[in-house]
Amino acid sequence: MKHLSESKTIINSKKMTKNITIIGIGHIGSSIAVTLKKRMNCIITAVDFSKKNLQFALENNIVDKVSEMNECFANADFVFLCIPVKFIEDLLPEILNNVDNNTVVIDVGSTKKDICQKIRNHKNRKQFVAAHPIAGTEYNGPQSAIEGLFDNKMNLICESELSEKSVLEKAKEIFSVLKMNTKFIDADEHDKNLAYVSHLSHVLSFALANTVINNNNLHSSVFTLAGSGFASTVRLAKSSPEMWIPIFLKNSENILQALDIFIDNLLEYKSLIQNSNSETLNIKLTEANEIKNLIDLK
Amino acid sequence: MKHLSESKTIINSKKMTKNITIIGIGHIGSSIAVTLKKRMNCIITAVDFSKKNLQFALENNIVDKVSEMNECFANADFVFLCIPVKFIEDLLPEILNNVDNNTVVIDVGSTKKDICQKIRNHKNRKQFVAAHPIAGTEYNGPQSAIEGLFDNKMNLICESELSEKSVLEKAKEIFSVLKMNTKFIDADEHDKNLAYVSHLSHVLSFALANTVINNNNLHSSVFTLAGSGFASTVRLAKSSPEMWIPIFLKNSENILQALDIFIDNLLEYKSLIQNSNSETLNIKLTEANEIKNLIDLK
Repeated sequence: MKHLSESKTIINSKKMTKNITIIGIGHIGSSIAVTLKKRMNCIITAVDFSKKNLQFALENNIVDKVSEMNECFANADFVFLCIPVKFIEDLLPEILNNVDNNTVVIDVGSTKKDICQKIRNHKNRKQFVAAHPIAGTEYNGPQSAIEGLFDNKMNLICESELSEKSVLEKAKEIFSVLKMNTKFIDADEHDKNLAYVSHLSHVLSFALANTVINNNNLHSSVFTLAGSGFASTVRLAKSSPEMWIPIFLKNSENILQALDIFIDNLLEYKSLIQNSNSETLNIKLTEANEIKNLIDLK
Repeated sequence: MKHLSESKTIINSKKMTKNITIIGIGHIGSSIAVTLKKRMNCIITAVDFSKKNLQFALENNIVDKVSEMNECFANADFVFLCIPVKFIEDLLPEILNNVDNNTVVIDVGSTKKDICQKIRNHKNRKQFVAAHPIAGTEYNGPQSAIEGLFDNKMNLICESELSEKSVLEKAKEIFSVLKMNTKFIDADEHDKNLAYVSHLSHVLSFALANTVINNNNLHSSVFTLAGSGFASTVRLAKSSPEMWIPIFLKNSENILQALDIFIDNLLEYKSLIQNSNSETLNIKLTEANEIKNLIDLK
């Protein structure tokens, strides 16, 4: 509530309707749209290469208007880039070339280093805020829009010192309408840490699904034997290849390092199980149990 | 509802209070206790090596009585073994030596082959039902008892042909009071398939926690950057070593096979990421996405 009332004082006190352009009306873009529409005076314009997604978003009142890329910047107060990280990097320089002086451009990509690097010396860098709202589900498309998806979640902003102060303030305000807690982090640190607490989870979940699907050794109805534990670890395997392949490739160095440590751990488990080494297994599992005290997310 | 009403006709029509002994009053044992107490006329006696667990269960009305092992079989209609699989195997022959002629003994262990093997030729084998209710969470102890934990979940019974018909019927009835759907499966098949859709998930979740905990390369507050995806894949790392080490060792052959295939998949991801092979990554992720259509568990 603190966030919402704060933002009301600032964004809404101007009594002006804000023009918000959302490029990429998938899960994140559409969830931003439905949440902002409910909480502030705004007109939301969507851009997406998928005509089907645009039509769905319009018909379901997720957005107010649809537009072509070259017409979507005029009078925009905010432009959100909610597309795969590779496309953010490709499009961002051109977008910064074309926006008005007062427009705040925010990306919500899951990797930050290359994106920040790409426009570090752009003449309009100061109008840009490199953000990563840590929110989302394994679903995709505007069909999966969730109002309040970002409530009480963490938002990370990188290289904030390169955004103009007023631009950064406006970005923080709009994230506070989304009820997010904003934290600042170095872009390299961001990519390294997220490799371990997000990207690696996706690789292993995809690999788990690959291990079980089309495995001829298994019962034809093997999945009826699965419980909530399997469902939990394989959940992320439902995630979109379009979103995740670019993340894997953009953050490959950190992900490969995390993957190596993870595989080493698995090889150690393999050897401990092979040798019935209960004692060391107990040390490993007891260490892993520490996670209880380290995260309280469900 | 079908299950409950069916069971009412059979178990409750006798107008007799059933004596139920639960050996091991942890998460599963205590959840069976609270659920049965609510749904049928019964007196529940608990046995556990932990005096603290017994006291908690008694004080919180999870069970009616506590007992020592050597006194817990007299007049028992049902004996549930809800202890780590190694102990089930160790204790089962002696338990079958000591129960009354009318007692039904049911184990709920997560591996079945060795347990079935151990008492295959026992003179009282016919009084035993080898079961595996596919239910549970990552929590343990009687503090984590959940009434209705088993509702609409799958229960697997192995080597049912070695249980006396009336014994099997009684076991099915009590599982139907728990509102479980019972399915019969060969013990070898059970262990092989569960290695892939349960045990492997636990190994990888423990290994994921080990990869991130005490990793000096990471930010001291790395866990504040974690989202629900990480939480989901690392959830099982909270599971009890006492329960899981014996499962890993009892089902080692199948788990090692599953682990090998899983590691091969990870090595393939590693190579595809290293070589920026988007095309093959897309094939792998698209195959993994099939999981959407194969399980509908949350």
